[in-house]
Amino acid sequence: MHCLARLFSLPVLQGGTVVNADRQFQADVLIRDGIILRVEPGLQAARPGTRQLDARGKLVMPGGIDPHTHLAMPFMGQVACDDFFSGHAAALAGGTTMHIDFVLPVAHDLLAGWEEWQRKAQAAVMDYGFHMAVTSWSDRVAADMAAVTARGVNSFKFFMAYKGALMVNDEQLLAGLRRCKELGALAQVHAENGDAVAEGQQRVFDAGITGPEGHALSRPAALEGEATARAIRLAEFVGTPLYVVHVMSRDAMEEVGRARQRGVRVVGETVASAISMDESRMWHPDFDVAAQYVMSPPIRSKEHGAALRAALAGGVLQLVGTDHAVFNSSQKAVGRHDFRIIPNGVNGLEERLHVVWQELVNSGQLTPSDFVRVTSTAAAQVYNIYPRKGVVAPGSDADVIIFDPSLDHTITAAAHHSAMDTNIYEGYRVRGKVVTTISRGRVVWHEGKLNVMRGSGRFVPTPTHGPLFQGLDKQPAHLVDVARYGGVPVKRSSSGTHERDEL
Amino acid sequence: MHCLARLFSLPVLQGGTVVNADRQFQADVLIRDGIILRVEPGLQAARPGTRQLDARGKLVMPGGIDPHTHLAMPFMGQVACDDFFSGHAAALAGGTTMHIDFVLPVAHDLLAGWEEWQRKAQAAVMDYGFHMAVTSWSDRVAADMAAVTARGVNSFKFFMAYKGALMVNDEQLLAGLRRCKELGALAQVHAENGDAVAEGQQRVFDAGITGPEGHALSRPAALEGEATARAIRLAEFVGTPLYVVHVMSRDAMEEVGRARQRGVRVVGETVASAISMDESRMWHPDFDVAAQYVMSPPIRSKEHGAALRAALAGGVLQLVGTDHAVFNSSQKAVGRHDFRIIPNGVNGLEERLHVVWQELVNSGQLTPSDFVRVTSTAAAQVYNIYPRKGVVAPGSDADVIIFDPSLDHTITAAAHHSAMDTNIYEGYRVRGKVVTTISRGRVVWHEGKLNVMRGSGRFVPTPTHGPLFQGLDKQPAHLVDVARYGGVPVKRSSSGTHERDEL
Amino acid sequence: MHCLARLFSLPVLQGGTVVNADRQFQADVLIRDGIILRVEPGLQAARPGTRQLDARGKLVMPGGIDPHTHLAMPFMGQVACDDFFSGHAAALAGGTTMHIDFVLPVAHDLLAGWEEWQRKAQAAVMDYGFHMAVTSWSDRVAADMAAVTARGVNSFKFFMAYKGALMVNDEQLLAGLRRCKELGALAQVHAENGDAVAEGQQRVFDAGITGPEGHALSRPAALEGEATARAIRLAEFVGTPLYVVHVMSRDAMEEVGRARQRGVRVVGETVASAISMDESRMWHPDFDVAAQYVMSPPIRSKEHGAALRAALAGGVLQLVGTDHAVFNSSQKAVGRHDFRIIPNGVNGLEERLHVVWQELVNSGQLTPSDFVRVTSTAAAQVYNIYPRKGVVAPGSDADVIIFDPSLDHTITAAAHHSAMDTNIYEGYRVRGKVVTTISRGRVVWHEGKLNVMRGSGRFVPTPTHGPLFQGLDKQPAHLVDVARYGGVPVKRSSSGTHERDEL
Amino acid sequence: MHCLARLFSLPVLQGGTVVNADRQFQADVLIRDGIILRVEPGLQAARPGTRQLDARGKLVMPGGIDPHTHLAMPFMGQVACDDFFSGHAAALAGGTTMHIDFVLPVAHDLLAGWEEWQRKAQAAVMDYGFHMAVTSWSDRVAADMAAVTARGVNSFKFFMAYKGALMVNDEQLLAGLRRCKELGALAQVHAENGDAVAEGQQRVFDAGITGPEGHALSRPAALEGEATARAIRLAEFVGTPLYVVHVMSRDAMEEVGRARQRGVRVVGETVASAISMDESRMWHPDFDVAAQYVMSPPIRSKEHGAALRAALAGGVLQLVGTDHAVFNSSQKAVGRHDFRIIPNGVNGLEERLHVVWQELVNSGQLTPSDFVRVTSTAAAQVYNIYPRKGVVAPGSDADVIIFDPSLDHTITAAAHHSAMDTNIYEGYRVRGKVVTTISRGRVVWHEGKLNVMRGSGRFVPTPTHGPLFQGLDKQPAHLVDVARYGGVPVKRSSSGTHERDEL
Repeated sequence: MHCLARLFSLPVLQGGTVVNADRQFQADVLIRDGIILRVEPGLQAARPGTRQLDARGKLVMPGGIDPHTHLAMPFMGQVACDDFFSGHAAALAGGTTMHIDFVLPVAHDLLAGWEEWQRKAQAAVMDYGFHMAVTSWSDRVAADMAAVTARGVNSFKFFMAYKGALMVNDEQLLAGLRRCKELGALAQVHAENGDAVAEGQQRVFDAGITGPEGHALSRPAALEGEATARAIRLAEFVGTPLYVVHVMSRDAMEEVGRARQRGVRVVGETVASAISMDESRMWHPDFDVAAQYVMSPPIRSKEHGAALRAALAGGVLQLVGTDHAVFNSSQKAVGRHDFRIIPNGVNGLEERLHVVWQELVNSGQLTPSDFVRVTSTAAAQVYNIYPRKGVVAPGSDADVIIFDPSLDHTITAAAHHSAMDTNIYEGYRVRGKVVTTISRGRVVWHEGKLNVMRGSGRFVPTPTHGPLFQGLDKQPAHLVDVARYGGVPVKRSSSGTHERDEL
Repeated sequence: MHCLARLFSLPVLQGGTVVNADRQFQADVLIRDGIILRVEPGLQAARPGTRQLDARGKLVMPGGIDPHTHLAMPFMGQVACDDFFSGHAAALAGGTTMHIDFVLPVAHDLLAGWEEWQRKAQAAVMDYGFHMAVTSWSDRVAADMAAVTARGVNSFKFFMAYKGALMVNDEQLLAGLRRCKELGALAQVHAENGDAVAEGQQRVFDAGITGPEGHALSRPAALEGEATARAIRLAEFVGTPLYVVHVMSRDAMEEVGRARQRGVRVVGETVASAISMDESRMWHPDFDVAAQYVMSPPIRSKEHGAALRAALAGGVLQLVGTDHAVFNSSQKAVGRHDFRIIPNGVNGLEERLHVVWQELVNSGQLTPSDFVRVTSTAAAQVYNIYPRKGVVAPGSDADVIIFDPSLDHTITAAAHHSAMDTNIYEGYRVRGKVVTTISRGRVVWHEGKLNVMRGSGRFVPTPTHGPLFQGLDKQPAHLVDVARYGGVPVKRSSSGTHERDEL
Repeated sequence: MHCLARLFSLPVLQGGTVVNADRQFQADVLIRDGIILRVEPGLQAARPGTRQLDARGKLVMPGGIDPHTHLAMPFMGQVACDDFFSGHAAALAGGTTMHIDFVLPVAHDLLAGWEEWQRKAQAAVMDYGFHMAVTSWSDRVAADMAAVTARGVNSFKFFMAYKGALMVNDEQLLAGLRRCKELGALAQVHAENGDAVAEGQQRVFDAGITGPEGHALSRPAALEGEATARAIRLAEFVGTPLYVVHVMSRDAMEEVGRARQRGVRVVGETVASAISMDESRMWHPDFDVAAQYVMSPPIRSKEHGAALRAALAGGVLQLVGTDHAVFNSSQKAVGRHDFRIIPNGVNGLEERLHVVWQELVNSGQLTPSDFVRVTSTAAAQVYNIYPRKGVVAPGSDADVIIFDPSLDHTITAAAHHSAMDTNIYEGYRVRGKVVTTISRGRVVWHEGKLNVMRGSGRFVPTPTHGPLFQGLDKQPAHLVDVARYGGVPVKRSSSGTHERDEL
Repeated sequence: MHCLARLFSLPVLQGGTVVNADRQFQADVLIRDGIILRVEPGLQAARPGTRQLDARGKLVMPGGIDPHTHLAMPFMGQVACDDFFSGHAAALAGGTTMHIDFVLPVAHDLLAGWEEWQRKAQAAVMDYGFHMAVTSWSDRVAADMAAVTARGVNSFKFFMAYKGALMVNDEQLLAGLRRCKELGALAQVHAENGDAVAEGQQRVFDAGITGPEGHALSRPAALEGEATARAIRLAEFVGTPLYVVHVMSRDAMEEVGRARQRGVRVVGETVASAISMDESRMWHPDFDVAAQYVMSPPIRSKEHGAALRAALAGGVLQLVGTDHAVFNSSQKAVGRHDFRIIPNGVNGLEERLHVVWQELVNSGQLTPSDFVRVTSTAAAQVYNIYPRKGVVAPGSDADVIIFDPSLDHTITAAAHHSAMDTNIYEGYRVRGKVVTTISRGRVVWHEGKLNVMRGSGRFVPTPTHGPLFQGLDKQPAHLVDVARYGGVPVKRSSSGTHERDEL
């Protein structure tokens, strides 16, 4: 066993083109003990125990990091059918070697949620991190946020939708943002106006539209744009960075762009489904097909997808996740007569790299280096685990893939590795394929075969005070710029308050 | 008495240039029984009983309509010191012959509020209408809204700020918008994020800033922009017109502009103080001066004023009100040690026409016809009382002013007619002056003298289903476009729901 | 004959709803001697010689004014086949009672052009005005511009496209803008980047695309947006108003909107084809069909049309013309093997009112009053002939239509009155129809019959210094704000120049 | 001598924090033979011949790359007074170790220009690259562009201003853009509307404003915005990347942002003076002071500077150069009586790093890694010399600086190393200082002393087809999307052209 482990721990990737976010170059890659040891041309791999992998004509890239997944999540009366084993297996087969999953509090108890998720993760076969959802507000929650960061979580998500369930109001969101700032943790938002969504759902249902298309009709892009604009301004008001999960629409993207232009530290994540699919799927006459595409915010019309792709190319959006939360046909079927109770979620953990490559690299909009950035490096940087993850470099974790840009293949449920019985990308054709995946130095996917070991995945703590917080203390609290005025009192005999500095 | 009334009811304005919103032209104006009888050149005024008013070299324009006032309003523990007598007198001296005042519910009771305001209005010396504030939500409120429209109110205002007092949340706002749509009544919003304002006030106060400048610091323009964007999108979602009161910032203005460009029926009102003053006033070392300028949303920096003036010139904003709500020095003084309890409000009812003329006509940005439009005609149209008000034309109410564009004067508290002991425009110089005001055919302001009669003003009902509602039934409900899809069912054996029309 | 004329000159329209740009109301309309005499309810029409026209259940509106036509224009080797007789007849049958045609210089000679067009106009059967195109620059041209304004032309058009033919460069455009400012005349631009268009045409042709679709492909919307932005900024730089003809794209529209928001005096005209048709027509497999839709700038994709309609609703664009310039099938056929020589132009003079009504009023986006504004009143105001034209009011020219909003009809070449053998609106269905047209008091279209008299149309001079110029002298020259600084010299011992005023 | 060279070629930087664009980390840096050999913690430097440099508490960063300079440039009748010796010395003292200078053609002869500049560069004491200006168009120019790329130039600049001198018109610019695309070379633009600038200069001069403030007044930001928008759209039309040099205004920056959002490959460079100075300097009563600030496009008002800083923080702009082109007082004095002939240009080559640090890092807007990106790495990537330059990594050129973030200092002409007798940053205070500069492994600046060797600098060829060109061949030619349609012919019996694909 020891020998075997050694064997696996000495792969050498020869003759490939290494692609990192900053550039691509010819080099071999030598791995030892789960770590990248050397990245140089002409590495001799004669040593006994090495496993030579031929990367000639292929690209060697950091494994994907999916910043947005929900494995084994209890939601809308169901439990997402990919757990940390099947989900991880699927991920690895698709070249993703790490993900960050959203912990939900258990009865608003953050630490209980944390423990629950660590339990789920015992099945892990690749590395993972955690975000924590904050679905209520109290002193207890505030205290637990600190406790959770001490356990290696640096990001907290606030839902502006799912009224009556996960949703927080503006007062709670403001408190949460302030707490995030204190902790050096990144605030995240699911941005839709939950009150309006609830109203729209009722309106559409009352109009006799009960099928999946009702999902699209009831929560238009403007409601996503609204909440995105609101969250950004509130974060700006508090003076803390913001991460907008699953930007699905032009409306939301433009708000991210406007904010970045005025220097706000906001990160926009879109997802694989948003840049490749369109809402017409929800009008499919077969409920089982249509229901697959129900996620929130909804997949939009084609124009939105095109706008999101352009925004990735232009740097307005920074990364691509999946919101992988899969419910199989029988689970989706509970909403057969009421779109409002169709469990929300689509697959993507296995498909993400291929979809991004097809949509953006094969179209010439992204370079391979850009591809690495939006699928891996940016996530590592934002979540403060770079360069341990997100780069092929000496000292980094040996999460590496070999990608053959010339291979054509087609995505199907029949061939995928998820526990799902369907696949929203059924029949989707891609040029370019992950042929080998190495996770922590182990070759886990090669020649179409998975070789995974339950429990081998490890928790990767994400430290607070990442790059997005650097220098923040030097900035005036953006919108309530007390600091700017505080030092120069307005001398008023009776009021004793402050005077404006020369502006 | 009868003769006297006759006498007053037959003014003839000779030799002036009539200015309406669509054009200006030379004509005399003959008035009888409170109505404009004829508008023609060369009217012979030889008839006994006529009073000839020389308008040569001067402009004859419809009296101003102030769409935004708060007379005798109980607010923040005080009662605004201009009532329907002093406020009206001031208005007439400044050329405004009608206003629309905001009725506040009494303990959330709309009809009680209505009765209270009609009582206050018994002192009226000019015509007035009412808007109704909606500060809570219940079936009772919804029913009372209908009752109030039956009494002649066609507009309901929702406060998105004043947390814990007047503020409604999004759920309430959505219900209110839907109710407005049903009634054909115009929804209005005070657009600031009330949760954030409360947070900001506390933060600023805790930082030791207790003076009036804290007011400006604690509720930045971004919070106004946020709420404006939110209200517009919610109204768009419901499919009903929206009127944004007191647009004070570039942020809010730009949201109005973006919405209008996509065809949303949104009306933007700015106010006299926003286009002429700037926030530096709140840093004045004398509290009594600084506190005068405290209103909400706050007066902003100079750049905002310039942007608002340009937006009026370019048609992005439609009209100019005042938010006249005056508290004298002793009333403002309650906030001497805490800016949060300074009663909010500034004067403007008397000054508005002069300020708009000075800022926009004398600078060449508006023509005299534009001036009439933004100070009178647009309000009459929006509130559906045109052409009874808002135009100098046969058959219209004889609310007319004579304006001498060559007269220089200076605004001072010493000379004004409001009950206020201060004036935010103290020392403000204007070229152009209202020399005569005729209200319902009576010469009430002439040669610097007021001639008003307590109780002579009348309530002007504003009918529902005004121009902003015309054709609305033909539009798809903008954002939940059920109608568009409803007719073509998606035939699903098991779900029986609807199919998408050809897109 | 005299009696007959009298007969015709005393129509009375009874029982209709008068629709003007500011409002609609019940009134009868009495006409005498080509002028509207009275507009009141209950007019007794018992007098002998009156012709009673029953307008019950119908709308009485000012006749349309088409601000953009090219009758009998020599262009691209052809002469537009509608002249002042056939074009006018068609216009009247469609409810348009005045148009403003573009005079082209003859060999760059403006006055020769003027004379040529007055000759063409001898066949006129309705009122008309003239714009003048400026296609070169010299002292002679500058002098002739003054001469032409003295003859009743207040607008000059500059082509930024048609390289090698009509196009002017920026230096010439700047000179022209400055001259327009001096004369109080309105500068107009055809906004496309002519250099890029020429390049694009060659590129597309060289790629083997020779058919009409090449027209669309070779001059994309971005080139229109570019030139629109450029023209606006140059006009702003000079400080003179600008009128952008035929805004065909979202790109151009957004530039107009951005400029208006910053207070620039820019007017945006779109055309009937832009708001109702889309570019797919140019891909029609039948060349004769496809070629009909070739005009410049090109008709765009559907998204552009939707954006333009919204912009009209929101006031970002001000009016709708046609660019009526018709070439029949045999004329269009010269470009059968080269899209670059297909004579550019589409019909619309007869169809405009119906198209605008169908697209914008029947969809609920415009009210009937808005309809009057964008088809008639705005043009009358912009070109300074209001209220002679553009309103149903006593004293105005009796150019009036009766419109039945309940009549369904279909546009066909077989039934139209133009000299064209095709119609781009073939098969277009409309609810709402012009049933009667009165031109200068004569009933020229009634019960489906035209009754026109060659030579009866008259030239309507358009005076300079219209409303868009009012107050302009008070504005600082926008972008080179010399006036602002001129008075306060920067005292430099050696340079003697100017000092900045307090900013 | 050999020993000495060896000595210099073995510096080891110990104990510092290495800052690269992607991250910062603790490491020592060992240099050998002008190349970085190792970057690791705990490097033993005991070997004889090493020179230990103590970097404890300090930052070790790649030397700056100034992408925009004009050394020894003949311009406006003068020759810029910093040549390749004095300019380089100044650069090194300020931590910049490479620049890319603009070669001007000699009498429109590119190769002659190239030779002239290589001659000038014989004095070089640090590495340098070249851009080539294209100031006319002919087959000869097109051919020479290829010849110049073969000599190691990958970027060509087109001036849209300097009418009658360097300016090209749109036809020439389009030809140049197409040629750049063919060559895989980057097109650059100086974006101002030259026709309007010329007009504005004359207008301002004629108004009696002859001093330096006339420079600011005569070429407002809108003209820069206009040309930026135009150049971007033309590049988009041609389908080639664009680099906008010296973005000086919000207007131009917003155009860059809009384009990037729609996925256009445009790079925005701003300059040190734009983010730190404001136009009021040109109103200084002392001509000699005021004239120093004359550069084109002009330095703008404070609001522009703030917008540019925010845009750098948000990634809308990518890098900061200087446009270093210095003329001393006697040279500037030729324009004492006419601002139009003041030689344009400001200093910055020595000050850039300090200014960017002070304005953006000390304010908390940029992190140290961002600082490295905008001052060094981005330039290396854009100009395709990364990772040879722009990063502290093994194998890279040993162009490295040591930066002490705690040192306060003040910029003065008395202390600077440029040949200039003035400094636009006179009295500017900075916290943070370059204490050591290593150029190609030689310690050239240390403890306030320069140690440079004339002729030691080398030309760094910049290869064509850099990252901005990657994948471009897969993109449809953006705006004339012939490829998209070409394959599916519109079958027309008579025309034989193409049919549109399913859209």
